[in-house]
Amino acid sequence: MNGARLTDDQRLDWLRLIRSENVGPRTFRTLVNRYGGASGALEALPDLARKSGRPSLKVTTRAEAEREMALAARLGVRFVAMGEPDYPKTLQAIDTAPPLIAVRGSGEVLARPSVAIVGSRNASAAGLTFAERLSRQLGEAGYAVVSGLARGIDTRAHKATLDTGTVAVMAGGHDRIYPAENEALLLAIIEQGGAIVSEMPMGWEPRGRDFPRRNRIVSGLSYGVVVVEAARRSGSLITARFALEQGREVFAVPGSPLDPRAEGTNDLIRDGATLCASVEHVTSVLEPLIAAGPRTDDGIEEGRPGEETEELWDELDLPDIARPPVGLVKPEGGFFEEEAESHPVIESRPVAGDRALIALLGPSPIAVDDLVRQSGLPIRVVQTALLELELVGRLERHGGNAVSLLPAPEA
Amino acid sequence: MNGARLTDDQRLDWLRLIRSENVGPRTFRTLVNRYGGASGALEALPDLARKSGRPSLKVTTRAEAEREMALAARLGVRFVAMGEPDYPKTLQAIDTAPPLIAVRGSGEVLARPSVAIVGSRNASAAGLTFAERLSRQLGEAGYAVVSGLARGIDTRAHKATLDTGTVAVMAGGHDRIYPAENEALLLAIIEQGGAIVSEMPMGWEPRGRDFPRRNRIVSGLSYGVVVVEAARRSGSLITARFALEQGREVFAVPGSPLDPRAEGTNDLIRDGATLCASVEHVTSVLEPLIAAGPRTDDGIEEGRPGEETEELWDELDLPDIARPPVGLVKPEGGFFEEEAESHPVIESRPVAGDRALIALLGPSPIAVDDLVRQSGLPIRVVQTALLELELVGRLERHGGNAVSLLPAPEA
Repeated sequence: MNGARLTDDQRLDWLRLIRSENVGPRTFRTLVNRYGGASGALEALPDLARKSGRPSLKVTTRAEAEREMALAARLGVRFVAMGEPDYPKTLQAIDTAPPLIAVRGSGEVLARPSVAIVGSRNASAAGLTFAERLSRQLGEAGYAVVSGLARGIDTRAHKATLDTGTVAVMAGGHDRIYPAENEALLLAIIEQGGAIVSEMPMGWEPRGRDFPRRNRIVSGLSYGVVVVEAARRSGSLITARFALEQGREVFAVPGSPLDPRAEGTNDLIRDGATLCASVEHVTSVLEPLIAAGPRTDDGIEEGRPGEETEELWDELDLPDIARPPVGLVKPEGGFFEEEAESHPVIESRPVAGDRALIALLGPSPIAVDDLVRQSGLPIRVVQTALLELELVGRLERHGGNAVSLLPAPEA
Repeated sequence: MNGARLTDDQRLDWLRLIRSENVGPRTFRTLVNRYGGASGALEALPDLARKSGRPSLKVTTRAEAEREMALAARLGVRFVAMGEPDYPKTLQAIDTAPPLIAVRGSGEVLARPSVAIVGSRNASAAGLTFAERLSRQLGEAGYAVVSGLARGIDTRAHKATLDTGTVAVMAGGHDRIYPAENEALLLAIIEQGGAIVSEMPMGWEPRGRDFPRRNRIVSGLSYGVVVVEAARRSGSLITARFALEQGREVFAVPGSPLDPRAEGTNDLIRDGATLCASVEHVTSVLEPLIAAGPRTDDGIEEGRPGEETEELWDELDLPDIARPPVGLVKPEGGFFEEEAESHPVIESRPVAGDRALIALLGPSPIAVDDLVRQSGLPIRVVQTALLELELVGRLERHGGNAVSLLPAPEA
């Protein structure tokens, strides 16, 4: 990652690739590294799709991407690619960093050290008051405050930091503000030097599963996440879990055991989150981390020759985000289903050559290295087969470069 | 400690010795071990006092002790000595265990595994509700609930466990109920199978410094202490600190950072106390400890020959309770001034032979072993000199068998 900007053509290719069917952040990364760039990946996609028995896999056309760019420009939204100087370094360090983020508002605020403040939509007066106070104090201490534009704690956090700098991450497209009542707040954020971020296409109406997906960006942008009030199994706990997986600090504000809105935060504290009762409890932890700077990650190599593909592929260590990390609560059910869920389930017809490999795979994760050893196939053949399985939604990637087979959809 | 009961004469001697001037739990232990029993210590005291330049040191007479016993008997109060079968094993394990406790009510409840519930006198409704619920659930789980009979949380904890068994520890004598409004509660505790415990003489009116002193017994009786609500620098935090020094579990109930009554408990959690939001958070920690049983301690050897004195003396490892333990908040100022404070300060006129030793001592703690080495004196001579210094209130004992010199009072 050289920190150079993409050309307009490259940016358009990136948008086409990330908007294509069954391509999410991780597949994007795999494809670009495999084919030396988005352009090469786009060229290879139809053939890859055919070989994987999916000739109808939808590749976004140049015209469609240009149309989205034009819609975005009309709202003052620009696309910033991973690796570009404006792309937030903290976000870039996460495994599922969006290849492109659509940004509206100030770029400056995205370059500042950030803290996320999240919590209940139906927060208590005490929770709202504390969120407001803490946000303001963090803003005064020089932090950008990140949240999700939701009702309750999120709204209070944004409002308290309008004049110091705040970042709202949306679960839908920039032209689909949710909740609608927060449109005025969104405009105030932009006017007063804040920023709005989304990875979703223009026109995308946010659905239930988009909110947890969005939450990984809230935590990914931030050095730490403060959960102010959270019931058990609430979205804020998902953000906390992402933060933990991303190696970010988790802070939780305690509350009375009689208040259901404190159950999630008290659980977090019991599970090792830092108890936050004052701004110093946050800043004293984050200051040394900020001084050390974000962990850097250069997972995408636009325009590099494919010779390094093997090495790059092996570098990937994809977390199994459907599995609870050690020492943190497990929200019920999976909540971040990537490509396989955000697009209609497609029929799986793997080519005959992959049968042996499929037979070796199952629901239990296995390291790719072990798969190569057990199959006796060349690593490049195994990797291509895995990529094809991934494109048809049959492959799940786990931490430690392990993979497992997803069940074939009913015919 | 053989677990046998004292004879009536021995019990009277124990009472005389612990009620004598400048004799607290630790001096009691030292004297009994040094002179082979309370009787021998009482015989030696006048000579020790004379040698230490304090001929007027008040030794409680047989008649005075008999009078206290009679007063106690009238209220149904009996004296239980450390090492006797009825003496609570958990309390016996602490360094400053009272040699005699005056018990009113059931002995059975004192034999059961106990948890202390402590907290603010001016507690919130939520704090009182949680204290009541937790106490009742702990009682139903078979625990005796220990507290201090104070207003607020203490009162609620006792009331919620009247029918399952509760223990109130008083800071004054059994005939000096404080607060007076809790006399009916005290009588209900006794009637319903609970117990009242005090180490103070009959007729003793509790003063400010007696409450922290009492708190060490509240924690000492218990496997763990739950602090429900506590402002900073409150008495409940002192109990928590004693618990930590005594190797007991500390639990704290979280609360909103906006509530000053939660500042102390939130601090405790940040400092390592277990967050308690449900009864399981307590029982899951204590059950394995109870299964293992209390650490035993046989620090007093009534009726054993003096030959083992040296060894027993060396076994003592007295904590410096004016110093904050690692990892726990330090309440402001000293709060458990033992003998030196509970009796009028006496004039210090150490005999000439101790001058060399006094010169070696200073405000910084030094190990007795080092003192022996540096002084070139026989260990027995050093120990006698230290005992005399202790009796005139010039010696402070610390952990690791270390001692330091206290300043001489103004003439």
